[in-house]
Amino acid sequence: MVAIRSALWKSLRSYQVYGANTNVGKTIISTALCKSLQRKFPDQRIWYLKPVSTGPLEEADDCHVRKFVRGIQADCLFQFDEPVSPHIAARQSSGNVPSDLELVQSIYSKMSQYAAESTPGWALVETAGGVHSPGPSGIPQADLYRPLRLSTILVGDSNLGGISSSISAFESLHVRGYDVDLVVLFVNEKYKNHEYLVEYFSPKNVTVLPIPAPPEWQPNETSDRQCMADYYDSLSESASMDQALDFLTASHDRRIHDLNSMASRANRVIWYPFSQHQSISPSTITTIDSAYGDYFQTLDPAAKEDPHRPLLNTTFDGSASWWTQGLGHGNPELSLAASYAAGRYGHVMFAGTVHEPALTLAESLLDNLRNSRLTRVFYSDNGSTGIEVAVKMALRAAAVRNGWDASVKEVEVMGLRGSYHGDTIGSMDCSEPSVYNEKVGWYRGRGYWFDYPTVKMVNGTWTVEVPEALQYELGPGSQYASVSEVFNLSRRQLESSAQRYRAYIQKIIHKLVTDDKRRFGALIMEPVVLGAGGMIVIDPLFQKLLVDVVRESRDIFEAGGMGNSQQVVASEWTGLPVIFDEVFTGLYRLGRFSSASFIGVEPDISVHAKLLTGGVVPLCATLASKSIFEAFVSPDKSDALLHGHSYTAHAIGCTVARTSISSMIDMERNGSWDDFKASWQDSHGPEIWSVWSKEFIAQLSTDPCVAGAVGLGSVLAITLKDSAGSGYTSTVSQDLQARLAQTSGRDWNIHSRVLGNVIYLMSSLTCAKEDVRAIEKFVASCLQR
Amino acid sequence: MVAIRSALWKSLRSYQVYGANTNVGKTIISTALCKSLQRKFPDQRIWYLKPVSTGPLEEADDCHVRKFVRGIQADCLFQFDEPVSPHIAARQSSGNVPSDLELVQSIYSKMSQYAAESTPGWALVETAGGVHSPGPSGIPQADLYRPLRLSTILVGDSNLGGISSSISAFESLHVRGYDVDLVVLFVNEKYKNHEYLVEYFSPKNVTVLPIPAPPEWQPNETSDRQCMADYYDSLSESASMDQALDFLTASHDRRIHDLNSMASRANRVIWYPFSQHQSISPSTITTIDSAYGDYFQTLDPAAKEDPHRPLLNTTFDGSASWWTQGLGHGNPELSLAASYAAGRYGHVMFAGTVHEPALTLAESLLDNLRNSRLTRVFYSDNGSTGIEVAVKMALRAAAVRNGWDASVKEVEVMGLRGSYHGDTIGSMDCSEPSVYNEKVGWYRGRGYWFDYPTVKMVNGTWTVEVPEALQYELGPGSQYASVSEVFNLSRRQLESSAQRYRAYIQKIIHKLVTDDKRRFGALIMEPVVLGAGGMIVIDPLFQKLLVDVVRESRDIFEAGGMGNSQQVVASEWTGLPVIFDEVFTGLYRLGRFSSASFIGVEPDISVHAKLLTGGVVPLCATLASKSIFEAFVSPDKSDALLHGHSYTAHAIGCTVARTSISSMIDMERNGSWDDFKASWQDSHGPEIWSVWSKEFIAQLSTDPCVAGAVGLGSVLAITLKDSAGSGYTSTVSQDLQARLAQTSGRDWNIHSRVLGNVIYLMSSLTCAKEDVRAIEKFVASCLQR
Repeated sequence: MVAIRSALWKSLRSYQVYGANTNVGKTIISTALCKSLQRKFPDQRIWYLKPVSTGPLEEADDCHVRKFVRGIQADCLFQFDEPVSPHIAARQSSGNVPSDLELVQSIYSKMSQYAAESTPGWALVETAGGVHSPGPSGIPQADLYRPLRLSTILVGDSNLGGISSSISAFESLHVRGYDVDLVVLFVNEKYKNHEYLVEYFSPKNVTVLPIPAPPEWQPNETSDRQCMADYYDSLSESASMDQALDFLTASHDRRIHDLNSMASRANRVIWYPFSQHQSISPSTITTIDSAYGDYFQTLDPAAKEDPHRPLLNTTFDGSASWWTQGLGHGNPELSLAASYAAGRYGHVMFAGTVHEPALTLAESLLDNLRNSRLTRVFYSDNGSTGIEVAVKMALRAAAVRNGWDASVKEVEVMGLRGSYHGDTIGSMDCSEPSVYNEKVGWYRGRGYWFDYPTVKMVNGTWTVEVPEALQYELGPGSQYASVSEVFNLSRRQLESSAQRYRAYIQKIIHKLVTDDKRRFGALIMEPVVLGAGGMIVIDPLFQKLLVDVVRESRDIFEAGGMGNSQQVVASEWTGLPVIFDEVFTGLYRLGRFSSASFIGVEPDISVHAKLLTGGVVPLCATLASKSIFEAFVSPDKSDALLHGHSYTAHAIGCTVARTSISSMIDMERNGSWDDFKASWQDSHGPEIWSVWSKEFIAQLSTDPCVAGAVGLGSVLAITLKDSAGSGYTSTVSQDLQARLAQTSGRDWNIHSRVLGNVIYLMSSLTCAKEDVRAIEKFVASCLQR
Repeated sequence: MVAIRSALWKSLRSYQVYGANTNVGKTIISTALCKSLQRKFPDQRIWYLKPVSTGPLEEADDCHVRKFVRGIQADCLFQFDEPVSPHIAARQSSGNVPSDLELVQSIYSKMSQYAAESTPGWALVETAGGVHSPGPSGIPQADLYRPLRLSTILVGDSNLGGISSSISAFESLHVRGYDVDLVVLFVNEKYKNHEYLVEYFSPKNVTVLPIPAPPEWQPNETSDRQCMADYYDSLSESASMDQALDFLTASHDRRIHDLNSMASRANRVIWYPFSQHQSISPSTITTIDSAYGDYFQTLDPAAKEDPHRPLLNTTFDGSASWWTQGLGHGNPELSLAASYAAGRYGHVMFAGTVHEPALTLAESLLDNLRNSRLTRVFYSDNGSTGIEVAVKMALRAAAVRNGWDASVKEVEVMGLRGSYHGDTIGSMDCSEPSVYNEKVGWYRGRGYWFDYPTVKMVNGTWTVEVPEALQYELGPGSQYASVSEVFNLSRRQLESSAQRYRAYIQKIIHKLVTDDKRRFGALIMEPVVLGAGGMIVIDPLFQKLLVDVVRESRDIFEAGGMGNSQQVVASEWTGLPVIFDEVFTGLYRLGRFSSASFIGVEPDISVHAKLLTGGVVPLCATLASKSIFEAFVSPDKSDALLHGHSYTAHAIGCTVARTSISSMIDMERNGSWDDFKASWQDSHGPEIWSVWSKEFIAQLSTDPCVAGAVGLGSVLAITLKDSAGSGYTSTVSQDLQARLAQTSGRDWNIHSRVLGNVIYLMSSLTCAKEDVRAIEKFVASCLQR
């Protein structure tokens, strides 16, 4: 597993020592700290750890520390003889070169040993060179060690130019989410960097400790050693050192105290989304210290009782943080992109102005969606607002086409049963009445929602299941040799079921519009998968034919408008404007840039969010066709789409989105997912793949507790058998959820979300294959209990 | 004016040379670049500019450049004799020490001279020390020079540790929104930093140019000089230097080309918020290159015709970017806060979890609002979603209290005429029908909206104006000696108008509820000022009495519920839950943390956004009282507030908000606005103040074109006389808007927004007093034409 725990124990105050530069005195300052700690805390143990050392053994930093701090345990994990940067030394070395993972795991394991000792203590972990000096693999240390997220002591630079290098080093750590508690540097009376830095860091709550520079080197070894010993002794007696150690002590204690208090404080002041507070108590709230890659660092409440137990567990973020994560938590590229935009623009109001990130993101979306209809991009802040925009667009286009004036308010949408499009009233109204909305004052579903066949693997076979009530009209469903066959729509359109689907849809439309005189203004669907509706895969053939039939039914829908007789250009909407809600399904969540491509349909309006910003900040883009756009163009201002949020097209969101999208496109181009794809290869239809293995899905689907399973892109959905009936109030999946979350005897667990009797997992797009496989194993073992 | 233009001319390719550290060869590399440019572009002029130099004149960098680049113009703006860092030299100097503003203005003015010359050319501006080495005033150079946002060449560090310092220096520039085009560093075959950095920067689109190290210093001056001359000569002939200069040329050209193309590209692909596209063309779209403080850097289209004209104008962001800006664009503290959160968390899903930024922000809001009712914080993504949440809260609380079941859909809100609460359907429905919503398919106003008296300064006197239709009942309005008197509600409650207001409100409520049997579930208002409704100041006495009367009317509103007989605790809502929409008015926009405090009312639900994140990313907090919260607590999950967005409580937003809020609180505590406040001091009522001066408001209010004016906090609103009647379609204010936007003969202009016949301006909370006064003068001069 790539999962690494952040290093935090109550019994072990641990700090990582980074340098603002090379040769700023990291080892001397580390030694001074160790010596002073030893003097101040005679009952505690002091450990010094050098993960990677280069140069002759006898000159190594750990030797220096041992020399001057009697009785200290000073360890070095990897030693290279060449006195060069670790990445060059590693390249030249014939010996054991650790991978990043091994290196970080070795540090954690060493620290675990320290923490397990009965005596509490302190550990200093000294890095090599500056914060971005490369580790053995070549990756900059600040990135290499980030998973451990140790509290940090930065050794400042007292030389000429050292103000700059100290601040820049601090910033490089800061943008990676490190907490720098203390800056220590030598006093240099000529440059007085320490005076400047004390003032500079004070408002940032970073303590700066200036200490006297070490004595000059003495040619006589004995007297040199004595000089240094005296230096360390006198430092360890100084009041300012004493204060700094008090500060570190307090800082470590406060961090732990805060972590331990957060759940009860949250329970007092937070009103949680989608949560019944009667079932919430401090013990049900997960405290998250930080996150990296696919993992949260979660507080282990049991550590409160045992100071030697690690406080933080590694928890797989099994909902991809509500389906938003694509490039991993704490991704430095996205962090830098966000800060660049903040530094260049902040936010720039977007009515009548243009800035580069908003423009180039719009162009990139239009280019990459490859939908010949879409020509315009409207920004808003999240999926729900983006759907409101889409519905406003569609309803107006329909109203203009059909000559409905402002008095006509009873316009509805067509959709799919079980859909979810967001929580603002306009989005809620696009879904049928359900437990999500029945008690919401102003909700009233305005639409008709089709029932439909679904797809999952059942007992080892890909199956299209038709709801019982529809079987008379749609047939009994069917089975396929592979998921690619299910998505092979050009072939399936020739099957008899296609005729039945088509006839059924036509019949319903006719009844609703012609017989019941209901007025519709949009067809709105999540392509391929209903997300919040239960991770249900809709039969793509049904979705395709639904769009086809609606578009062919101009004579029905546009009775007051153009009718079938009038010629339209190919990109013109007909029948109803078709809205695809790709908020969840798009941007590679299901393995492809556009989820519409699975069903071969070009919607007139397309909504994108969640993965859009790689899981960093909210942003939504609603794309529309020319024929939708033109319904709003007139000499009259009041005909415009008078919608907008203050932060519309905020530069940070657009910049992060641009970075995120191009990273994902590059990953696809560079074959980053080829390993996953290989196992899914199938010549009987289009490329359908998942990070979850075919074998695992098959295994799940034959489990006696499982009604069916699906893996698509990074999504895994397991439908559990539930004798009490499925639905939002089902609890059967909660048992499995609890087993996935248990931590005893494991060093990682899984945070998952359930939807009724469906439990799902979702990885980022950067999750390592071995992690996915390990998770599969764990899931299987939890099922079998 | 603090307004500084970013430096960009077509005729002058200009680059700022920053160093990854001190002593990395900035001057040698600058000289090499100048020499090579001269060789490559013999028809162009080359300028070298050293803004601040320390040390003996004859050793200064500009002398070195002059020595080796024949005919170059090498300028130094400020010279200090002491060979120490500029901030120390400046402290010790008896001579002229420039302020930050003077220094940056001097650079711009020098560069303007270069650009004005008939021959096109290149300018290199060499900084001192590392990127964060302090300038004369002590501010780090990367911050000092940020307003110019020159394209950047970073001189990398080829020494041991130089990989780290080069990357960190790059990151410090990057988070401030600089574009680093080129990294140049010496080849050092021992450390091979150049090899590493070429690879490292390649995916970031930064070109790295390794060049041979300079020859060793020769004791003989003549031969030393010859060696260096040969070195520069040979560099200028090298293919890699040639390529790098081609790259710089292309990069400058592309930047200008992109800027020039952006408006037409945007006109093709962007669907603008709140905009009638028929009146949009490339010429009406403002291209924004960057922003800093209160200013946009806007493209001057006229520069297309004249290569010597600056491409970028400084434009005051007169709408504070749709009312969001508080701490200035490009604020490095907020940029670092955003990136820290991105680096530590990314986004963390927020159902049943807690992370520090969300928790501490919630605690800070509850503490600082000083509303004894509020106990819970619910996060969403923007003001509109936050209002939806508030309305869901209120309607449910009313339904539970009054025993309305799910079938009761016709519950309305009470509000004020002209209110605006957002663009999602639930928020729109809180406002009465108007031009904003009349064509929106699903909008239907669900409420009653009171008319009310308003406040403005008319002809030099603070006036409470009563709409004609209400004068019979509320009286003719009244005049006050100061705005503080208008807000002195404890005194005004004793006036006879208070009795009339009260009676009027009681009468309306009685008619609506008792006679017409309409059902209400909330009172929703923007406190003090209606924002989008036209920057109208509501008579605070009316607002206070409206809340009082509603709260006293339990027997009317709660006829089916508790009635007046039952005892309630003080924090319990009565009558109707009261929602205050402080999205625009709160968090110091009107000069106080809470705008509710102006009217001395504690709402049951309070909504905060916009300034919450200091103008960086969208985020909203809806705060509620215990008695509201408890309406959702039950054993039944479906009773919960089933609302939530994927990015709920995103860590970046919460972290930036925490930073922003505490900065603003500190500013208030430290008296940062005392200068503004002083001119408004008044002993006849509470403290009311504005960045806009009392004298200016008075002057405006007596202008023959002006019907009235108001200044509150950072808001200035001018109501213009409009014979054609006011309203959204008014155009009279557009003439003034156009005059404010004109650039000819000025080096700055104003981007403003109008609302019907009202034009408003809004500064950040960090805007310099001299800027505000200069803007006042300009506004006055534009009015008088």
